[in-house]
Amino acid sequence: MKTKKTLKKELRLVESLIKKDFVKEKTISDLYDHVFKSKGKKIRAKLNLISSSQNKKINKNHRIKLAAIIELLHTATLVHDDVVDNSPTRRGIESVNNIWTNAHGVLIGDYIYSKAFMYMVDIGNKKILKELSNATNDISQGELIQLDAMNNFEITLNKLKKISYYKTGRLFEASAKTGALLINANDKYINNIRNCAKDLGILFQIKDDLLDYSIESKIGKPNFQDLREGKVTYPFFYAYKNSNLNQKKELEKMMGNKKLNQKNTIKLVANLGGIEETKNLAKEYFNKSINSAKKIRNLKIREEMIELAKIAINRKK
Amino acid sequence: MKTKKTLKKELRLVESLIKKDFVKEKTISDLYDHVFKSKGKKIRAKLNLISSSQNKKINKNHRIKLAAIIELLHTATLVHDDVVDNSPTRRGIESVNNIWTNAHGVLIGDYIYSKAFMYMVDIGNKKILKELSNATNDISQGELIQLDAMNNFEITLNKLKKISYYKTGRLFEASAKTGALLINANDKYINNIRNCAKDLGILFQIKDDLLDYSIESKIGKPNFQDLREGKVTYPFFYAYKNSNLNQKKELEKMMGNKKLNQKNTIKLVANLGGIEETKNLAKEYFNKSINSAKKIRNLKIREEMIELAKIAINRKK
Repeated sequence: MKTKKTLKKELRLVESLIKKDFVKEKTISDLYDHVFKSKGKKIRAKLNLISSSQNKKINKNHRIKLAAIIELLHTATLVHDDVVDNSPTRRGIESVNNIWTNAHGVLIGDYIYSKAFMYMVDIGNKKILKELSNATNDISQGELIQLDAMNNFEITLNKLKKISYYKTGRLFEASAKTGALLINANDKYINNIRNCAKDLGILFQIKDDLLDYSIESKIGKPNFQDLREGKVTYPFFYAYKNSNLNQKKELEKMMGNKKLNQKNTIKLVANLGGIEETKNLAKEYFNKSINSAKKIRNLKIREEMIELAKIAINRKK
Repeated sequence: MKTKKTLKKELRLVESLIKKDFVKEKTISDLYDHVFKSKGKKIRAKLNLISSSQNKKINKNHRIKLAAIIELLHTATLVHDDVVDNSPTRRGIESVNNIWTNAHGVLIGDYIYSKAFMYMVDIGNKKILKELSNATNDISQGELIQLDAMNNFEITLNKLKKISYYKTGRLFEASAKTGALLINANDKYINNIRNCAKDLGILFQIKDDLLDYSIESKIGKPNFQDLREGKVTYPFFYAYKNSNLNQKKELEKMMGNKKLNQKNTIKLVANLGGIEETKNLAKEYFNKSINSAKKIRNLKIREEMIELAKIAINRKK
C-alpha cells in the first residue's frame, strides 16, 4: 500500500510519461505541449493509482502507463468538448480551438485518443482494453445525448442523471475498475471500488454544474457557461421545475442568452430552490459513494476513497 | 480462396454488421444511420477480406468483424474530416456537420472510433490491435500535417508524399496487414501484401487529388474543393513548381479562392504540367504496387490485388 508521498511521486511519473511524446512535426508537438501545459487535477489518474495500489508484485511501468492512459482519454474528451461547446478556455488557459482552429482541436483529440489505445495495447490486458473502449464509447454517447438535450426545458431528472453518468461517472468508474483489473483483484473489490468511483464521478459532475452557477468560482471557465450555451443542468432543472408560468418564461429567456445578468440569474435560480436541491442531490451521491467505500476491506484504500469523496463535495473550483 | 461472388456476399455481411448497431437514443441512431446510408466503395474492407482469404480454417465471424472495423475506422476519419474541412457533402449526400452541426460530427466520429476499438477487443488479436491503433494515430498525424501545410506554396514533394501515405496509404496498408495477421500468415506474405496495399493507397490519394482538378468528375464532392480550401495537392504543386513569377502570382490568387473560375484554373494548371506530372506520379505508384503484388505467391490474391490497382488508376470517380 502506497503512502501519500508515493502517490504524488507516481502522479509526477504519469505526467512525464504523457509529456514524453516524440513527433518530429512541429505543429503536432506544439499542440500536444499546449494541451498538457496546464496540469489539471488528475483525479481520475489518482483514482486509478489508488485502485491498483494494493498489489506490490505488479509491473510498476504498467501502473504508471495505465494512469497515463486514463489521463490521455480524459484529455482527448476535453479537447473535443471544447470544439463541441466552442469554449474559449480550458483549465484557465486558452483552448486549442481558440488559439488554433476547430480543425486542430478535432485532430489533436484524435491523436491523443489513439495514443491512449497504443498504450493500452502495450499493457495488453484484454479486460482493461474492453472496459476502456466501452467507456470511451459511452462517453461519446453521453455527449451526444447532452447535445440533443440542448434548450430542452422538458428534460427529465433521469436523463440528466444518465448524462452525468455517461459524461463523467463512466470514466471515473473505468479508472477504478481498470486499476483493480490490473492487479487481478477479486470481484468484490472490483465492484466496490467501481461503484464508489462511479458515484464519485457523478458527484463531481453535479458539483461542476453547481460551480457554473456561482459567481466566485474559479474552475477555469467563465460562469454560467452551461446556461449561455443552452445546456440544462441540475440547478436550472430544479429551478424550472419549481417555477410558476412567469418565472418559467424568465428562465427560458436566460437559456442560451450570451449577455445574461449574472446577479439576477443566480438570484432567481437560488430563490426557486435550484441551488439547494442540487446540493441535496450532491449529498445523495456523496453518501452513495461513501457507502461503497466503506465496503472496501483494505483500510488505506477505503480512507483514500472517502477522502476523494470529501474533496469532491467540498471543492470550490 | 474465395471467388468474386463470395467476396461480394462477405461485403454485404460487413455492411449488415456495421448497421447492426443498437442504441436506444434516437439522435445517435439517426446520426449513425445517416453516416452509413451511403455505401461508399468499401475498397479498404475488400482489401482486408482479400488479404485474409487464403486460410479456410479461420473464424469467419472474425473475418467479417475485422473488415467492419476497417470500414468503421475509415468512416470515423471521414466524418471528422468533414468537420475539419467544413465540407457540405460526403459520398454525394449531405455531411453530418451540414445537416446537424460540427459538434455532432465530432461526437459521432468519436462514437464510431470507439465502436471500432470495441470490435477489435472482441477479436482479441494483440498484433491487430497494435497495428490499428498505430494506424489511427498516424492518420491523425497526416491530417494535422496537411492542416499545417495549408496555403503553403513552398511545400516539398516529400511532405506531400508523407501526407498521402499517412492520410490514405496508412489505412490501406493496415487493412492488408491485419487481414494477413488474422490468418497468421508468414512474414513474407504480410510484407508483400502490405507494401502492395500501401502504394495502392497512395495511388488512390493521388487519383483523388487529380479528380478534384477535373470538371467532369463525380466523386461526390464539389470540384476544386482542395484548392478552394487552401490545400496544396499534387496538380497544384507541380504547376507551381513549373511556373514563372507571373504565373505563380496567378496560382497564388486561386488558392483559397471560393469563387475561382473553373475553366481558367484547369487550363493554367494543365498548361503548366500539373496534370501530366501528377499522372506520372500515379503511374509510378501503380507500378510499385503491381511489383509488390507480383511477389505474392497465391495466384488468386495476386490477381485480385492487381485488379484493385488497375481500378484505382483508371477510376473516374
